[in-house]
Order: sequence, then C-alpha cells, then structure tokens
Amino acid sequence: MKRFSLFLILLSAPLLMWAQHPSDYNKSGSSFPQINADNSVTLSIRAPQAKAITVDLGGRYPMTKDENGVWTATTAPLVPGFHYYSLITGGLSFADPATYTFYGMSRYASAVEVNEAPADADFYLPKKDVPQGAVRSVKFWSDACQQYRRMYVYTPAEYEKNPNKRYPVLYLQHGGGEDETGWIYQGFADVILDNLIAKGEAEPMIIVMNSGYATLPGSTDSFDAFEKMMIEDVIPFVDKRFRTIADRDHRAVAGLSWGAKQAYDLAFGHKEYFSWVSGFSGIIVIGEFNPRNPGFKDPEQFAAAWNGIFKNPTAFNKDFHLVFCTTGEAEGKLIEEMHELLLANGIQNEYYCSPETAHEWLSWRRSLYQFAKKLFK
Amino acid sequence: MKRFSLFLILLSAPLLMWAQHPSDYNKSGSSFPQINADNSVTLSIRAPQAKAITVDLGGRYPMTKDENGVWTATTAPLVPGFHYYSLITGGLSFADPATYTFYGMSRYASAVEVNEAPADADFYLPKKDVPQGAVRSVKFWSDACQQYRRMYVYTPAEYEKNPNKRYPVLYLQHGGGEDETGWIYQGFADVILDNLIAKGEAEPMIIVMNSGYATLPGSTDSFDAFEKMMIEDVIPFVDKRFRTIADRDHRAVAGLSWGAKQAYDLAFGHKEYFSWVSGFSGIIVIGEFNPRNPGFKDPEQFAAAWNGIFKNPTAFNKDFHLVFCTTGEAEGKLIEEMHELLLANGIQNEYYCSPETAHEWLSWRRSLYQFAKKLFK
Repeated sequence: MKRFSLFLILLSAPLLMWAQHPSDYNKSGSSFPQINADNSVTLSIRAPQAKAITVDLGGRYPMTKDENGVWTATTAPLVPGFHYYSLITGGLSFADPATYTFYGMSRYASAVEVNEAPADADFYLPKKDVPQGAVRSVKFWSDACQQYRRMYVYTPAEYEKNPNKRYPVLYLQHGGGEDETGWIYQGFADVILDNLIAKGEAEPMIIVMNSGYATLPGSTDSFDAFEKMMIEDVIPFVDKRFRTIADRDHRAVAGLSWGAKQAYDLAFGHKEYFSWVSGFSGIIVIGEFNPRNPGFKDPEQFAAAWNGIFKNPTAFNKDFHLVFCTTGEAEGKLIEEMHELLLANGIQNEYYCSPETAHEWLSWRRSLYQFAKKLFK
Repeated sequence: MKRFSLFLILLSAPLLMWAQHPSDYNKSGSSFPQINADNSVTLSIRAPQAKAITVDLGGRYPMTKDENGVWTATTAPLVPGFHYYSLITGGLSFADPATYTFYGMSRYASAVEVNEAPADADFYLPKKDVPQGAVRSVKFWSDACQQYRRMYVYTPAEYEKNPNKRYPVLYLQHGGGEDETGWIYQGFADVILDNLIAKGEAEPMIIVMNSGYATLPGSTDSFDAFEKMMIEDVIPFVDKRFRTIADRDHRAVAGLSWGAKQAYDLAFGHKEYFSWVSGFSGIIVIGEFNPRNPGFKDPEQFAAAWNGIFKNPTAFNKDFHLVFCTTGEAEGKLIEEMHELLLANGIQNEYYCSPETAHEWLSWRRSLYQFAKKLFK
C-alpha cells in the first residue's frame, strides 16, 4: 500500500501541468481524480452495488458505470486553482475516499488542484535551500467561549535562533465553512512566508490562525463572539506565549471571503489593536449585507460606521498604515468598486486583482503574497 | 452556525460520561452521534432520498428512516475508547458529515469516543496550569523517497526557554491506515507529555512522528523504504533542525500495532541508533508473520534474527536500556506470551497491560503514558 503525506506531494506536481496527471491530493497512489490536459477532471470510484453516483465539482456530473462496477465522470474544464468537491449518492454528499480531504464546506471535503504554470506556482512551493519556519498547533483556553480551542501559529525560521528578538504578528482568518487549518493545508501560508523572508522581500513575522467560529456560552456562533474571543483571549495569549511586539504598529489582521468581514470588523472596531488590515475577496460591510453593499453609498451609514472611523479621512489615513483590498479577476468588479469608493471618500487603500483566478485559494495565496510584502515596512 | 475546533472540545466531555451525551467529536453542535448511558452509540443522518444506509461501527447496523427522511441506528454497547466508524450506502463507505474526522482506515474516517471515567481520563486532559509544549508540522525532503514529506514534532514547554539545552528524542509511530497526525489528534501525545513533565514524572523530551508509509522511487510502499528513510533522512534532519542529544542513549522508538513492528525493526536492526524501544499492541516479528509468531519458538530463527542480536542476552541487556511490551487487556494474551518468551530467552523486557481496553487508542494513550515515565531515566 502506497500513501503520501498530506499536502506535500503536490510540491513537485506543478511540473506535470499541461499533461494529464493524477491530482496532487490523491492518496495511495490513486490514478483518479485525474487532471486532464484541458483542465477538466476525471473522477472514478468502484462501487458495484451503487445505483447512481453524481460528482459535485463546479456543477453536477452523473457518473456512468462499467461492467466492473467502476463509475467515472469527467467535468467541464476548470479554472486553475483549488476546488472542493463531493460525490453524491442517494441524496447524500460525501468525501471521495480516493483523495486526502480538507476542512471546507463545513466538513472534511475532497479537493483537486488544477495546477497553474510552474513559474506562477513558484512562490508557494518549498525549496530545499530556504530556511523553514515552524507551524505549531497551539491549544488555549478561551474565557469568552468557556472552552479549550486550537490555533495554528507560524513562527519564522529565525525565531528560535534569536531568543531575544521580538516579532510583529499577522492574525489571518479562513473563509466560511473552513477552519484554522485552511491557511496551512489549502493556502500554504507557511511556505509563502518562508520564501518571501528568505529573499528579504517580507519582514520576519508571526502568523496566528484561528477558527472564525466562536460561541458564547448559551448562545450560537456569532461574529461578536469571535471578536470578543480575539480581543480578550487570543491576543493576550499570543503576546504572552510568543515573543511579539505587542503594539498596534506591529499587529495586522487579514481574512478571506467571510473572514474578510471579520478582519475589517476587528481592525476598524478595535483600532487600538491593529494598524494594518486586508480583506481577500471580501467586503467591508456597512449597512445591510448586500453584494452591492449599499452602506457605502449612503453617506449617513458610511459616516456612522465604527463610531465614525471614516468621518475624518486624515486621521484614518494617519492611523492605518495599510488597508489592502484584493480579489480574483473572475470574481467581478465588486472589490475594485469598494476600493474606489473608499478612495472617493478620502480613505487611502490599495487594491490587488489576481489575474484570471476565481473565489478560491489561488486568489488567496496570491493575496497573502502581495500583502505580506507590504506588511510592517 | 456553531462549530468547534477539532479535538479540543472533548477536554471537558469526560465529565459527561455515564449520562447520554453528544459525541465529543461532533461538529456544528450536532446532537448525533450520541453516546448513550449504556455505552451504545446512536447515529442519525437526514437523507430523504437514500434507499438504505448501514452503520459500520464495531458491527453492521442497518438504519431505519422516519417520515422526515431522518435515518437512525443504535449500536450494541461499546468498550470505552476511540472507535472509527463509517456509514455505508449503495456499497460505498463514507465519513459521517456530522462529525470531525480522523485519518484512519487509510482515509479520513469518522470516530466516536466512548468516554472512560473522568479520573482515568485525567492524564490526557489539558490543564490550565500545565505549561504547554509545541506541536509543529515540519516539512522535510527525503532523498530516499525523492519527495517532500511532513512530520509532526513535539517540543516540551521549556524547549524555547532554554536555548542551549539539548533533549532526548522519542520517535513515535502510528498504526496501519493512520498517519503522522494520529498521535496528536487521536492519541493526545502532546497533552500526555505536558502533564507528565509538569509533575516531574517524565524527562522533557522531543517526540518525532512520521507517516509509516514510504516508497522508494519506482517501488511500492514497504517497511524497508520506511527504515531507509528514518535512518538516512529523518534522524539526520531532526538532529540538525532541533536541539537533540544525538546519541543512542538518548534516542527511543515506539509504535503501535503495525507501527510496533516498525519500532522493533528499527531498534533491533539499528542498535547503533536506539537503546529504548516499545511496541504498543504489536509483536516482534521473527519468522513467518503469524499471530502465534512461530519465529520466537524456533531457536534457530530466534538466534538468527537481526544478525544474532538475541544470541547473547548479556550483551543485549547491556545494550538496551528498556524493551517495553504493552497490550490492551481485551486483546488477549499474545503480547504477554511474547514478553514471557523473551524473558525465558534471557532478554530483559517489561510488560504493561491496559485494563479492560481493546486494540484502540485508549490502550495506546495509556501505553505512551507508562513508557514515557520510564524513558531516559
């Protein structure tokens, strides 16, 4: 029996792109899922007793069964990047047993990576000559949530060699239905930073990743509970446990999609803690939640947001070292419009658009890369 | 939406034992799986379109559907401990979307924990006043396997506070169908060591956990490939990357079940590297692989094993500080017989039997606890 260690086989895989090849995430040397030359994906599963199986991967694809009970289906061509998928039978969605799975879609879900060009993938591929930071799984007690929780913490390669040096901290959040593992397993945040730091293109920094789902006792999950936990439990714990520079000039927060709202809320609601903020493929929510975000266009709501933080652009621009808004090109113009609307209101911010990518991890790996290069400088 | 962070909610859960309660590993506040007062487990899944669903949890239990399309089944009472399970429909086994899953059964599998008495569980529950070690996810390049791989590494709480102190290392292996995450997510090795070290009952040590599946280029997975990788790649990498005491007196290897064979093979085949060894619920394989292990009873095979390592018991007993054989009581007498057969052949070794437990993680958490107390002393 052959098996690989999660998320590491893909490191040489981009070299295979543009030829038909097994998905990077397959286990046990499985040939399927297979990425085809046109970026379509072929899936296969042996299930002689099954009556019908459908693939749910950017659309629904009924599988067909051969005489050996092996079901197969091929999707339409997909855009490069990381795509969650499921198999469905009898109305049940489940993970494909042929692949490693990832926490997404609010459960462990299958995924394929449609590889991009090797040169483009270079920034998130590990290299033997690049010193490696550490990714730690760290338990902590949350008084707010009255539970033990887990965070992932990245410390740069030099962290343990400089026992007296202190570091700035980026708090980095996943998207809806994901968890604190997403930025490592799907996003390769550790490799991106290792590579940038080795080239001198990013400041050595600590990255702290938490689950964005939080519940106060007797209540249900809420953004408020998350904020309370971050401010009252997570930040004090991190500042005590790690050698941080514990001031707002050296503290950043970023998040993707659903987590972008959390990042902006934390930064603008608690500016005494943060002076750098980025939302990847996500909006600053002012007023009613709506893809066209009417709050921005209502001067009263805009002026009232976060105790009037946008009322005085001069003060805001002095307070915040960077507001960085990013999106994938295939996601449309919403984030660009938000960026421009902020500028039109005197709020300095920068904008990055990831060429050709959609609302998925390729956009967010690139967004982190761009943001990290600007951080703490 | 409510969700908890993997493996940490269970920390307060043993207090609930003996009353009906949701499984420790449920996500989204799911009520099912539910552990009942008699240690049976009730499972539930909504699937109005499904024709038939079966639970595979220590036996096969067909589920029954109510008028709302919700299927349920209750198992027979289970022994306390950690139990993998699957749902089956149309001949397909899949993970239950209601729970967090674990890498086991050679894929991400569902699991329930039938809690033991709180006092018994105490040694693997984290405590606020116990300093916490770090669990790191570490990538490394294996020349033997020609691939990047991942190991988990535990460093004790004091590791970063003593930048000049060096530590002994325990190499710790999972069982068949599991991977390098098993000892943290299923086994709580980090918490067990934190608790022991805080009480002064174990030496501060580094623990290195690797996937036991390894493949040489052009070949298939094998124990040989694993040994080559451990000796040629893993140990040199660990001794370079971490502050280890890099000699055989300060290097141990242990493994569970399938990994016990790997531990014994590594120790006895490479005694220049190891002087402490333990197999949890696993046998020393001499001669034909067989539950009754005839190699032991054949003096010729016994004497020839590992270049005659057992031929001279005096030398062996001087070389090895500890050979530690463990089992769960419900597993039968095989390991005890092996322990006695070794003694009868003059090979010193110690034996531990975990009361009432089966071939599962409760036996192995306890085995690690017992072994760690003896290590490096």
